[in-house]
Amino acid sequence: MPLDALVFDAYGTLYDVHSVARRCDALWPGRGAALSQAWRARQLEYTWLRSLMRRYVPFSQVTRDALAWACASLGLSLDESRIEELMGEYRRLAAFPDVPAALAALKGKKAILSNGSPDMLLPLVAHSKLSLDAVISVDEAKVFKPAPEVYELAVRKLKTKKNKIGFVSSNCWDALGAKSFGFGVYWINRGDAPLDRLGFEPDGVLRTLGDLPEILR
Amino acid sequence: MPLDALVFDAYGTLYDVHSVARRCDALWPGRGAALSQAWRARQLEYTWLRSLMRRYVPFSQVTRDALAWACASLGLSLDESRIEELMGEYRRLAAFPDVPAALAALKGKKAILSNGSPDMLLPLVAHSKLSLDAVISVDEAKVFKPAPEVYELAVRKLKTKKNKIGFVSSNCWDALGAKSFGFGVYWINRGDAPLDRLGFEPDGVLRTLGDLPEILR
Repeated sequence: MPLDALVFDAYGTLYDVHSVARRCDALWPGRGAALSQAWRARQLEYTWLRSLMRRYVPFSQVTRDALAWACASLGLSLDESRIEELMGEYRRLAAFPDVPAALAALKGKKAILSNGSPDMLLPLVAHSKLSLDAVISVDEAKVFKPAPEVYELAVRKLKTKKNKIGFVSSNCWDALGAKSFGFGVYWINRGDAPLDRLGFEPDGVLRTLGDLPEILR
Repeated sequence: MPLDALVFDAYGTLYDVHSVARRCDALWPGRGAALSQAWRARQLEYTWLRSLMRRYVPFSQVTRDALAWACASLGLSLDESRIEELMGEYRRLAAFPDVPAALAALKGKKAILSNGSPDMLLPLVAHSKLSLDAVISVDEAKVFKPAPEVYELAVRKLKTKKNKIGFVSSNCWDALGAKSFGFGVYWINRGDAPLDRLGFEPDGVLRTLGDLPEILR
């Protein structure tokens, strides 16, 4: 079935969060990989926990909270200037190399649907110069992925039926949350991870975003 | 303020999940610690993700799904007999050594409130011979911790006001979810972990359950 719109996850799917790890390593030599891993894992956990607790705060706050926890758990000292330096990195992430050409080759409306709050997400998209028809933040729904209310936002904003929307994420749980909601989904499995066991399967599994135009043809 | 009832988390708080790690290591020598860590982390993630997706399945199913993912991610082969062996271990976990004396020294009603589904939880409690007034599973609410509906179950089952209930967990996020709901909470921080940054703080932080009777006196 032809799709009217494609909706992309941002962090890890269009944008490479690896440069945050490099900056962590510059600040705490030899500890960058461990810190960035703990930070990212706790960032996601806090989105899920706060959503379930019904205690939403914007992703920028969750990201700072997770950084504070990760530094405390590794015994790394953190101050306001280091926090700002690392948060600044999130607004300047590089797009993956295959992203600009893949987006250009894809037909129909293209949008981002991200956990990122506007204060993080809008500067990032502007800096990357990617061409998109809409940038949608979960902030309007005051709950994080994979709550169905989040995916519903895309339906409403794009004025397109959900079975005409294809959703693309490199986060398997995000892809499966979108599938559970009713989108056709494509999981970009760059790291050759096993499929999450959440009762759903993606419609397609790709190694890079560059494979998507061919798959959808 | 005197409390009428104490409500305890089960896995990791009253019961030591370490024997599962030992059994993993017997099945896959040298890989037990890595497997058991990946298994437990994914088990919790799946409870949060399925709750947000509104795709609840009992904890026994989540636990099997997480085991399958963890084995796949580590390249370990799994068959039905190994699954049953490891699931059986969950029904025979040892109570932490300080638990029986601490429970005996605590006044008022005592209950368990656990993510565990009755098929896992009831055999475990029976096997351990701990004396409790109620064993409450989230299964009745069809959602996992830290959703407020879960903590509300304890209020309803124990017929006690929420400000007269003390909640005890070694999982910091569970303690803070209970605090957000309105319980007085005691975090058993056996592993000297940093406090989670979720907008709440426990009323007390203890190193072992053995310290609780003194704190509440």
